[in-house]
Amino acid sequence: MRDVFVIGVGMTKIKAYWEKSLRNLFAEASIKAIEDANGISPDAIFIGNMAAGELDKQANLGVYLAEYAGLKEIPAIRVESACGSGGAAFHAAYLGVASGMYNAILVGGVEKLTETPSMITTSVLAEAADQEYETYFGASFTALNALIMRYYMSVFKVPYEKIALWPLMMHENATYNPLAQLPFKVDLNTILNSPLIADPIRLFDCAPTGDGAAAVIIASEEIAKKHSDTPIFVPGIGFATDSLALSRRENLLSLKGTNLAAKKAYSMAKVNPNDINIAEIHDAFSILGIITLEDLGFSTKGEGTKDLENGKFSRNSVISVNPSGGLKARGHPVGATGIYQIAEIALQLRQDAGKMQIDNAELGLAHNIGGVGASVSVTILRR
Amino acid sequence: MRDVFVIGVGMTKIKAYWEKSLRNLFAEASIKAIEDANGISPDAIFIGNMAAGELDKQANLGVYLAEYAGLKEIPAIRVESACGSGGAAFHAAYLGVASGMYNAILVGGVEKLTETPSMITTSVLAEAADQEYETYFGASFTALNALIMRYYMSVFKVPYEKIALWPLMMHENATYNPLAQLPFKVDLNTILNSPLIADPIRLFDCAPTGDGAAAVIIASEEIAKKHSDTPIFVPGIGFATDSLALSRRENLLSLKGTNLAAKKAYSMAKVNPNDINIAEIHDAFSILGIITLEDLGFSTKGEGTKDLENGKFSRNSVISVNPSGGLKARGHPVGATGIYQIAEIALQLRQDAGKMQIDNAELGLAHNIGGVGASVSVTILRR
Repeated sequence: MRDVFVIGVGMTKIKAYWEKSLRNLFAEASIKAIEDANGISPDAIFIGNMAAGELDKQANLGVYLAEYAGLKEIPAIRVESACGSGGAAFHAAYLGVASGMYNAILVGGVEKLTETPSMITTSVLAEAADQEYETYFGASFTALNALIMRYYMSVFKVPYEKIALWPLMMHENATYNPLAQLPFKVDLNTILNSPLIADPIRLFDCAPTGDGAAAVIIASEEIAKKHSDTPIFVPGIGFATDSLALSRRENLLSLKGTNLAAKKAYSMAKVNPNDINIAEIHDAFSILGIITLEDLGFSTKGEGTKDLENGKFSRNSVISVNPSGGLKARGHPVGATGIYQIAEIALQLRQDAGKMQIDNAELGLAHNIGGVGASVSVTILRR
Repeated sequence: MRDVFVIGVGMTKIKAYWEKSLRNLFAEASIKAIEDANGISPDAIFIGNMAAGELDKQANLGVYLAEYAGLKEIPAIRVESACGSGGAAFHAAYLGVASGMYNAILVGGVEKLTETPSMITTSVLAEAADQEYETYFGASFTALNALIMRYYMSVFKVPYEKIALWPLMMHENATYNPLAQLPFKVDLNTILNSPLIADPIRLFDCAPTGDGAAAVIIASEEIAKKHSDTPIFVPGIGFATDSLALSRRENLLSLKGTNLAAKKAYSMAKVNPNDINIAEIHDAFSILGIITLEDLGFSTKGEGTKDLENGKFSRNSVISVNPSGGLKARGHPVGATGIYQIAEIALQLRQDAGKMQIDNAELGLAHNIGGVGASVSVTILRR
């Protein structure tokens, strides 16, 4: 299996774009990534997207987007794994370079969520859960996460005040990220008094909907050396799944998908959780962020909020977690999120993250979820 | 790059299933493929599907389908490339085994098109074309193919009576396929007098909509030898794209996507068109079948119908084309079609195709299109 390197990244700011379509956003991120990789011509494209079929009424998305970005004739394939589509597209593209079939692949993620009425957007996003066994019976996607949060708070005796430290840190981190959707600080009282969405989840526990695109160029070692002075190695990747419906899970306090995907990625990269300096993890809701800290092995089970409170995951601390602001405050253009994470980690490892930059970033991890933990990808990157 | 082999196949009959859901169909085909590969446990799943988001209101389709088939914890990723989703999923999965990351992958395709009103289904299928530049202005998907057909008939002076030989042969071939959706003969007069759908395309030039699922198991050489007495080698694959909208194509008499994908696959397999004994090609409309004969190099450009009339593509002739009955008569459950084709070729090469079996099948080719030739995969298989 050939080694794989990230040699170019491109991202758009995340916000509500009235003036740019899905194709515009993808082209913008792709062209930036290509320029960043010294004008490389990729020989294939993989694209993560969840909702364009329903929200843009467009299929054949690979060629639809590739052509508009000026990338013609080469393979262009869309990958869907709900909110984890970006990570899944990266996984598929990794296989393309690792196999030797392709030498340089553009992996993009794009989503446009703000053009449709929010009732429609929300209902399409809920298709990440099991429609037949969950949402048709009235459980919203937020409510499913609320079940997990209530149970976690009850078993580990964690009050909401501790959970609220998550969005507090995410909003603070996002102030360093010029591309973030919500780059402003909030105080604890604002979080604690924000409206309940699905008890106990409050407004500030939820990632916003937004539009955005991100792209990275991955390449073989030979190509990487030609096109980059700072290629970022991908020593390990893992992808795993769990039951789609929560009612069929063995354990709601842990996401088995994360456990399994991380185990695979750590083992392939020959590292352990303590080696990681920086991580971008999938906090679609605060509780997912906290459970993920534990499932990735950064905290003992049930102790995530203690480590959070002690500052273990703050910028430039033991492990800088979500220095981008995470899904909560960087934003969560669903199918693009997994690519934003990898792009951000690559920039950090290159010491090229501007105001967001954290010190001593050597080994990074990106963690992307589809559904409530049903499909999970973990990607490890090394300077 | 490791060699890749097809070691198991499973297919459902194609028809309108009122009693089986998307998950049921996928599970049925998958379990058959696993049994055919001697009960193998795949270590990843790739699934081709176009329309489940819109027609079944379900995303996260990889894990949704995999779990129902009893395949838990392993990666399960959906690939979308419109009507070419099956071929694209096979392409992505091939990279997984070729890379060495996975040893045995289940590649499935599934589509359920008959549960929604046909107006909705047809409009969702039209998303394979460029919505913004084509269908929004009133060109139906059939009308786009009609433009090509009219132009082809005019340039090469081919009367409709010659084009009609295509559905004639497809319906005859389908009588040998127990899984075909339309396994009955039609006479030439019936075709010639069938209703015009989009002039000059008549009813019998169009593939039907139907429900179905197909799955194949692909594996490394080591695993293939353990699990199969008749592993089928995949010596070459190719994937290519062309402009999505017809107005941006250089040439409407040829599908550049097919040219490029075939060139790549032939070159990788070190074969040429004359070496192929059997092919399953993407005849969503008669004209696509005929143009494809030429673009794959089986006929000189403009002479496809002459060779067809002379019997070159009949069962057990020079190249047996679509012995399954093709999209026209086997049926076209869109995202599954590319997997049906590969499964059928593998069975033929194994001499295991029952009544459908053709003689001396040594080298086969599967050709799957997304849109009107916008994304094309070509897969070569060898006994």
